[in-house]
Amino acid sequence: MADASFIAGDWGTSHLRLFLCDGDGRILERADAAGAAAAAGRFANLFDDLVAPWQQRGGPLPAVLCGMVGSSIGWIDAPYVPCPAVPEQIAAACVALRDGAIHVVPGVSCRNRLGAPDFMRGEETQILGALHLDPTLRRGQRLLCLPGTHTKWVALQDGVIVEFLTGLTGELFALLRDHSVLVQRTGELDPVSAAAAFKQALARFNEFPQAQLLHRLFECRARRLAGELTPLTAAGYLSGLLIASDIGGALRLLPPAGNAHSVHLIGDSQLTQLYALGLAAQHYTATALEGTAAALAGLAQVYRQLTQRLVANAVH
Amino acid sequence: MADASFIAGDWGTSHLRLFLCDGDGRILERADAAGAAAAAGRFANLFDDLVAPWQQRGGPLPAVLCGMVGSSIGWIDAPYVPCPAVPEQIAAACVALRDGAIHVVPGVSCRNRLGAPDFMRGEETQILGALHLDPTLRRGQRLLCLPGTHTKWVALQDGVIVEFLTGLTGELFALLRDHSVLVQRTGELDPVSAAAAFKQALARFNEFPQAQLLHRLFECRARRLAGELTPLTAAGYLSGLLIASDIGGALRLLPPAGNAHSVHLIGDSQLTQLYALGLAAQHYTATALEGTAAALAGLAQVYRQLTQRLVANAVH
Repeated sequence: MADASFIAGDWGTSHLRLFLCDGDGRILERADAAGAAAAAGRFANLFDDLVAPWQQRGGPLPAVLCGMVGSSIGWIDAPYVPCPAVPEQIAAACVALRDGAIHVVPGVSCRNRLGAPDFMRGEETQILGALHLDPTLRRGQRLLCLPGTHTKWVALQDGVIVEFLTGLTGELFALLRDHSVLVQRTGELDPVSAAAAFKQALARFNEFPQAQLLHRLFECRARRLAGELTPLTAAGYLSGLLIASDIGGALRLLPPAGNAHSVHLIGDSQLTQLYALGLAAQHYTATALEGTAAALAGLAQVYRQLTQRLVANAVH
Repeated sequence: MADASFIAGDWGTSHLRLFLCDGDGRILERADAAGAAAAAGRFANLFDDLVAPWQQRGGPLPAVLCGMVGSSIGWIDAPYVPCPAVPEQIAAACVALRDGAIHVVPGVSCRNRLGAPDFMRGEETQILGALHLDPTLRRGQRLLCLPGTHTKWVALQDGVIVEFLTGLTGELFALLRDHSVLVQRTGELDPVSAAAAFKQALARFNEFPQAQLLHRLFECRARRLAGELTPLTAAGYLSGLLIASDIGGALRLLPPAGNAHSVHLIGDSQLTQLYALGLAAQHYTATALEGTAAALAGLAQVYRQLTQRLVANAVH
């Protein structure tokens, strides 16, 4: 454990992922547990239990944590940094626990394109990581998309988060799949026919991009009644409708600058593949970065900046 | 019970409403029970139990039933009449049970404006009733809206149902209110502040009518985080967003003819009031007809047509 330098933690609502890292942010070991929703009030104990083996072997290690752990119902409230949010500002706004042994990354807030308040927490760290892993993102205007329970569409200007927009895509999909009349899945999904239904929905949505999602959803049921979908393919069709609506709606509100027809996806690789298909159906190209890798790179980046600040303070 | 002529039944998914009527369709008595979802396979028994007191006193009475009772999982499958559907055609396509003692009204199907199959069952009878109660609806192009679990927007041409479109409005509202992160209601609703939040959402939606609903929903949560909504007003705001999206999206796809800025609402009076507010916010006027009254008038209309046919058959 000679190389162990710090602990990086991605502590979201549903999952906690802790990584023991060396000075360059390379993973030496990892530990997983249930997320902030299950932690309710026991953040310190949970954290100490998980990192105890590492601390025992490697001595006291600093930690950088991001995600819902920093929310008002988390371990400590790390207030949102308002847009425009400069990457270095986000790291500098970390909130310290235990005399600075633990740093919690703040979320980012904005007033979005629709005039509504909007918030992210966790995604800002993935964005910091993406900016480190792909420095070209620091130049000019870029559009990022972080698909998930609450999909974030993020406009960057020279590496600064200038605004973003949240789609309820993942949460709505799960609700409609599990609780509505639309899907009523009764057996095992056939991936091939579900994928075909997904692509069909993408194409159909694009025929009437001005339609509201509300008027397309019943299709999942009506096409089953008409024999055009089965209970097993309706979930794929529903997923296609939601992702097409998310992409079409977001690109109309936050069009990429100039002639750029490229979107940078960050997230779970299965999900970014679906979004890449959706973007292609709307004549956009996509690059994809795996979400956990991005979060880890972001946490390492924050750790580096905090260390440099400590060193600078010690020198002066 | 000398006046009793027939039994009218509105047998939907959640409710069964049976009416003992005189020859003019006036209600003499009514009986209520759980709907088709709870009836599963026991339609005949349920019906016989409920109408037994009436039959005992008044002798055998014919019945006309509409709604999910005529679906493939109902008492008998009454196949959909395709659009354009003429009112007299719908009555003529009733499916007989028990040698014609019971008639079940068919649903109506179409290929909607978005190229998708679409279905209604139960609403066609309310429309028949509306055409009877307000004969001006039989002239020219008219746009009806029947809000509910699955809201129907219906285009009439000289009294003929030419096409319609379904919004998942009511079902989506209930799902999001009860199961999402958006509302999380923890106390009693204050009707006044909920109504204010509802109107605010109508106004805000109309500022960006081209926005997709998916990108407005998270507002319910974000505005709570920002202190602009409470858990108690968020449900009103959510309702406003959904109804505004339903109205805006439907009117863009099915605009009323010429300069007509009027929509004919049929449904539960609380719901038609909300839709009337939503229509006013988009500069439309609305007339409203109570849903059960419309269904009853429709069932009486079907009964009259069937009786005339029997008389005509007997004469020839």
